[in-house]
Amino acid sequence: MEYYSNQINRLVEELSGLPGIGSKSAQRLAFHILNMPKENVEKLSSAIINARSNVRYCKECFTLTDEEICPICKNTNRNHKVIMVVENTRDLAAYEKTQKFEGVYHVLHGAISPMLGIGPSDIRLKELMQRLQQEVDEVIIATNSSLEGETTAMYISKLIKPTGIKVTRIASGVPVGGDLEYIDEVTLLRALEGRTEL
Amino acid sequence: MEYYSNQINRLVEELSGLPGIGSKSAQRLAFHILNMPKENVEKLSSAIINARSNVRYCKECFTLTDEEICPICKNTNRNHKVIMVVENTRDLAAYEKTQKFEGVYHVLHGAISPMLGIGPSDIRLKELMQRLQQEVDEVIIATNSSLEGETTAMYISKLIKPTGIKVTRIASGVPVGGDLEYIDEVTLLRALEGRTEL
Repeated sequence: MEYYSNQINRLVEELSGLPGIGSKSAQRLAFHILNMPKENVEKLSSAIINARSNVRYCKECFTLTDEEICPICKNTNRNHKVIMVVENTRDLAAYEKTQKFEGVYHVLHGAISPMLGIGPSDIRLKELMQRLQQEVDEVIIATNSSLEGETTAMYISKLIKPTGIKVTRIASGVPVGGDLEYIDEVTLLRALEGRTEL
Repeated sequence: MEYYSNQINRLVEELSGLPGIGSKSAQRLAFHILNMPKENVEKLSSAIINARSNVRYCKECFTLTDEEICPICKNTNRNHKVIMVVENTRDLAAYEKTQKFEGVYHVLHGAISPMLGIGPSDIRLKELMQRLQQEVDEVIIATNSSLEGETTAMYISKLIKPTGIKVTRIASGVPVGGDLEYIDEVTLLRALEGRTEL
């Protein structure tokens, strides 16, 4: 792209390296940034660099945080004997938004995927097993309902069962507000299998 | 959002201020950035700040560039007597990609819009009229085919006509590959009005 000057090209290139941002969106974003007040651009740029340099893993649950122990693990009002296992920090945030889960989390940072060469030792499984040496009542596996998520859930449940700790899996079925007509067969079958008595 | 730590929240907030990026995309982008190698994050951050601080308007055509005169205006192989008027630098880039236009450009940085309170003095019109004091053969108006773009085109043509310089407007009609069935009535009428003999 020689139509723009060097600095603009560099910006467009850097932006289009981000996920979900193609060359058109990158151009739109670049020109928006060029027209932003200078102090806002500085804020954006420093937010990027600060977040990346200060963020680390919580020593307890391995979520991304900027403190040694994340606010959730620090909170003594939460039930530390119920651990929900999620694939990443965004999934943790999704459950936190419900404001109903009172336990704590364990973030795996991935899921087992033979296709991508991600094995059990590449995710935070060893750390989960270490946590289970303390008193734990229940481990809720909330990995995604994908092939990788299911594989990981199966693997974890097999690992934990011998310890005698209760292991559960979040329900899979028709989403609330979902129209049966537009839902795939696998989900419909899951919903049928998981039916509960009224 | 208390589910994330401060620095992550700040990053998500800054990103969601960009056009076309909602809170979900901002979260996805933020976690992508947090997982990027540190040097890539530094490159992204510095590209943003450098582009914004070094970019200025070309003294000739007012496109965004990092030199005093942009590469197009500097190029003596181009026909400086044919000026294409566009609304912004992205429109200039769109025509440059065709690699067929050999003239130079004039970037207005906006279009006349009474609705948004943008008048003729808010865009680079005075600068265009100044450029026309040199020898110019033709001014091609390539503002958008929107209400604002058309208003601007009309206004410019009325301003220039008294000087005797040829003023033209890019054609409006059915886009190449467009299916008549799906094209709006206004465009179809424009295409009919603008028909040419074969």
